[in-house]
Amino acid sequence: MAQKPSIPKGTRDFGQVEMARRNYIFDTIKSVFSLYGFQQIETPAMENIGTLMGKYGEEGDKLLFRVQNSGEKAALAPEKGLRYDLTVPFARYVVQHREEITFPFKRFQIQPVWRADRPQKGRYREFYQCDVDVIGSDSLIGELELIQIVEEVYRRLGINVCLHINNRKILAGIAEVIGAPDKIVDITVAIDKLDKIGVEAVNAELKERGLTDDQVAKLQPILTTPPQPSPQGRENNPKAKLEELRTYLAGSEIGLKGIEEMEEIFSLVEATTPSLEGRAGERFSIELDLCLARGLNYYTGAIFEVKALDAQIGSITGGGRYDNLTGIFGLPGVSGVGISFGADRIYDVLTELDLFPKKLLTTTQVLFATFGSDELHYALGWAKELRTAGIAVEVYPEPTKMKKQMGYADAKGIPFVAIVGGDEMAQNKVMLKNMTTGEQQLVDLENLKNSTFFAR
Amino acid sequence: MAQKPSIPKGTRDFGQVEMARRNYIFDTIKSVFSLYGFQQIETPAMENIGTLMGKYGEEGDKLLFRVQNSGEKAALAPEKGLRYDLTVPFARYVVQHREEITFPFKRFQIQPVWRADRPQKGRYREFYQCDVDVIGSDSLIGELELIQIVEEVYRRLGINVCLHINNRKILAGIAEVIGAPDKIVDITVAIDKLDKIGVEAVNAELKERGLTDDQVAKLQPILTTPPQPSPQGRENNPKAKLEELRTYLAGSEIGLKGIEEMEEIFSLVEATTPSLEGRAGERFSIELDLCLARGLNYYTGAIFEVKALDAQIGSITGGGRYDNLTGIFGLPGVSGVGISFGADRIYDVLTELDLFPKKLLTTTQVLFATFGSDELHYALGWAKELRTAGIAVEVYPEPTKMKKQMGYADAKGIPFVAIVGGDEMAQNKVMLKNMTTGEQQLVDLENLKNSTFFAR
Repeated sequence: MAQKPSIPKGTRDFGQVEMARRNYIFDTIKSVFSLYGFQQIETPAMENIGTLMGKYGEEGDKLLFRVQNSGEKAALAPEKGLRYDLTVPFARYVVQHREEITFPFKRFQIQPVWRADRPQKGRYREFYQCDVDVIGSDSLIGELELIQIVEEVYRRLGINVCLHINNRKILAGIAEVIGAPDKIVDITVAIDKLDKIGVEAVNAELKERGLTDDQVAKLQPILTTPPQPSPQGRENNPKAKLEELRTYLAGSEIGLKGIEEMEEIFSLVEATTPSLEGRAGERFSIELDLCLARGLNYYTGAIFEVKALDAQIGSITGGGRYDNLTGIFGLPGVSGVGISFGADRIYDVLTELDLFPKKLLTTTQVLFATFGSDELHYALGWAKELRTAGIAVEVYPEPTKMKKQMGYADAKGIPFVAIVGGDEMAQNKVMLKNMTTGEQQLVDLENLKNSTFFAR
Repeated sequence: MAQKPSIPKGTRDFGQVEMARRNYIFDTIKSVFSLYGFQQIETPAMENIGTLMGKYGEEGDKLLFRVQNSGEKAALAPEKGLRYDLTVPFARYVVQHREEITFPFKRFQIQPVWRADRPQKGRYREFYQCDVDVIGSDSLIGELELIQIVEEVYRRLGINVCLHINNRKILAGIAEVIGAPDKIVDITVAIDKLDKIGVEAVNAELKERGLTDDQVAKLQPILTTPPQPSPQGRENNPKAKLEELRTYLAGSEIGLKGIEEMEEIFSLVEATTPSLEGRAGERFSIELDLCLARGLNYYTGAIFEVKALDAQIGSITGGGRYDNLTGIFGLPGVSGVGISFGADRIYDVLTELDLFPKKLLTTTQVLFATFGSDELHYALGWAKELRTAGIAVEVYPEPTKMKKQMGYADAKGIPFVAIVGGDEMAQNKVMLKNMTTGEQQLVDLENLKNSTFFAR
């Protein structure tokens, strides 16, 4: 006998209940994207390996899954790889289709990506990303709209979040001011780990990466800014923070440009969402977080990360402004901004906080359970009529033991069973049983078709 | 400068319009599946290579895409492969999750599959399948419901179709009757090509495959049954055809069992869909097609294939009854029946016959076009209010030339543009332009929010 079958590690099957929950997340996100005029595209699971290689750093290259035709010799290097994220395929798409695209191009994309990461709790080798980007405009209204989208998506899902925001130009300014302008990447990589490893370890790493004691000392005011929103509410005052920072960065042109951008973004948010400012710890807040760096190096302006306030799970959404993403494919100077919603982590937060709506799984409204094959044929006629009226119906396919048929309705959560025996047939009716209350009543077809029993 | 990027041959990008059309097909199919109580599952893109190998014949094995971690040595045989269809992963799923599943298990699954076929017109290396199966019951009501689903899906899509139906037991009976019971696979493989290569070539292939002249001669009454439904209407009489066949198959137990099954299926269809019988060439017809064989060898009962009447494109839906699909994974004796809708071919038929609804792409309802940055900020406030009212809105992100902003609305098919200049702001209004008629009128925010201009 064959071994019990399994699936590759780090991958998952999704049953009916999980699918209903996942579709709830995707549908919520999609409907908010649409309110802002973003439209859906899809790209192939496989990209040419040259499209992917070198785009995610050395670490990323190692995590690419490669694909080869069975016909190809094993020793031959595969020329294709599975999509590692949605950003690089999007950049490739924009360059390839630039003649057909209307800019600014507002697209969203919801597809799985694959990474040969070591599987662990909450980390999978196949997972979905939901990306939304606007490319072809450097207007900060892009940033504003993404912030509004984050607010609206999490309002609809019922998750309280804090949106952490920073700016790569400010980070570049800090590197300049401490006298290590060429170390901007090292600095961001190190302080990106602040949350995980703490300030001591970050300082050690900075020295390891070649910063002098003096440079590390100069960086401390930045590292020790509390990254969490203060629970006291109005103390979270990004404008005051930016004012302070203006003094710190006085000597750096790029740093001051970053401050300007952030001031403009906060003004836009304030003007359109006046209730937001300073309400730390509430349903939605924005925190200027100078220790937010984000690992990927294509960001050039604002960067975002969203954390759920009531769950310990890390970032559930992140992204930022990039000025030259399409440059790697031969189309330089196109600015864009985008964010990615992490569907799996959102799923985990909704589960942990018990926030999924109770009645998500679209079920059959009524199951026909029959005592014999005449009754079964009779039920098939009714089923056809009810489906024409838009009611989801099942007919248990065999007139087997009533207990088994009722058990099927129970297991599938079907709210009504229409029992058909000889008596019911003779009267041209069915005995309708409410599976929640246990109540039964004789009803005819017209009753059933026009009844308010069923949610459409 | 980098080369213009491209994607692997046989794969495709889908832009916004294509996505809207594809989603229309998937949503139509899904809503019909739901009416019959089928629920969605998903399986991983990658399966263990052992799950896939040997399931699709020698040809199929060669068309599997293999996946390897970048870390793995190229010489090492990859242990994973990309999903080749949805049927084998479904069988694997049923066996793996049998303890959690309520049988009969009615599932649908809409996901891409990958085959290293030589790409050609209408044949891709990545394409979507939409499968619907009921497993764990041998009731022919399964067949009935799939026929009803086919009828309903194509009625909703507006495609006229003929459903060709046959039965593997009848084919086995024929093999017995002509004295070649061990040649059933050779016979079905050969006559499956009848449509493509014609009767002479099929006869030649049958002889090549070891059938005697006498056996081939005995087979002719079957091969020359016209496979197309006659346009005269009532001549397409499956019951009369089955009666004739009963005489031909008198000596074969399995053949007679097949005839019984088909009679039962036609009775069920007649009883629940009385208008169907004999209306060949109309919106929906069913044709008993003895030359339908279908290549895959796991079918054991009824087999189906659906052809569009008004387009030359081959089968757009196909499937059948299998009695031992899960046996290969160690769970024998579980009968099921399923069909697969070919989304790409359906897309091509709808395009060729111009049957896609005109207004499929969900667009923004109104674009704000502004003359300056004060106006832009003013527009952002209105946009926020309109979105809260559920209206999809865009704000052109820069107060650039009006012609450019109007051009954006044109290109995206946005039906209204709200023009904001100093005058409009002073009156707390916008100038709303209907992009179809060219009419303009001054409206205030309440007008706009409550207007019937916009489709919700």
